Amino acid sequence: MIKIKCMVVDKTRSPFLKDGESFYLERLRRYAQVKWIEVKPVKIKKGRSDRSILDAEAQAIERRLEQSDFTVALDRTGEAYTSEGLASWLNRMAVHEPGWATFIIGSPLGLSKDLIGSAKKVLSLSKLTLTHEMSRLLLLEQLYRAMTILKGEKYHK
Amino acid sequence: MIKIKCMVVDKTRSPFLKDGESFYLERLRRYAQVKWIEVKPVKIKKGRSDRSILDAEAQAIERRLEQSDFTVALDRTGEAYTSEGLASWLNRMAVHEPGWATFIIGSPLGLSKDLIGSAKKVLSLSKLTLTHEMSRLLLLEQLYRAMTILKGEKYHK
Repeated sequence: MIKIKCMVVDKTRSPFLKDGESFYLERLRRYAQVKWIEVKPVKIKKGRSDRSILDAEAQAIERRLEQSDFTVALDRTGEAYTSEGLASWLNRMAVHEPGWATFIIGSPLGLSKDLIGSAKKVLSLSKLTLTHEMSRLLLLEQLYRAMTILKGEKYHK
Repeated sequence: MIKIKCMVVDKTRSPFLKDGESFYLERLRRYAQVKWIEVKPVKIKKGRSDRSILDAEAQAIERRLEQSDFTVALDRTGEAYTSEGLASWLNRMAVHEPGWATFIIGSPLGLSKDLIGSAKKVLSLSKLTLTHEMSRLLLLEQLYRAMTILKGEKYHK
């Protein structure tokens, strides 16, 4: 069975995106083992630099990772897939990798450069800048779509 | 003022995407003149081919277009922009084109090849296949983001 872990910073605040997240998480769980992990956000004190916040967030994320996790950092500058391409990648992962496919989405500031650099893969959902909460919804929808592609179901067209 | 027309087939059925649409439409209207036009979907009779449905939908869309509309068909195979790129394109449009920037999103089947071929521009939100309803949300969020970029506001990062 395909094992998918999503690691996000903070809980989702937008009500409609939260609803959408639950909608696709529930569907995705019919096809795959899914872990959804919300890492606590770093408190933003006055005068703290973006860099220092990103570093603290990266540490919080790394503390929650397991050694065998196959980490996929989401960043606009990463590799762009078609939905079919993402599906076959997930399938190869499940066959060849022992660990979880672990998708990491940052805070409103994104992810630290070091974290992006050390991830096993960097994935881009779009060239457009998306809010981190919109990225969650889009990722979940694509993971669900990938599963329906692999099962040959008609959701995907 | 920037004039934006969105032409979509059918109303949005997913409750959370409908909420998201209203959320961004309301925000977008603070910055631009916006028309949101829902074209009636074609009734799908048994045995009717996708091609014939797409042609009928294209006709319904064309009937609602005005001569001066600058048509932008949304299709996965179109041109991909960054958010900043989309913002400057919209700005150039407002300066040089008399008509409305008219974004056309199809039905679950997409848009007919002829309609895509005759559009003045073809825009891709992502290499990934998105549902037509998800494309609406993403487009509206990007149009809102574009306006905040043009106004120099802090929403966009």
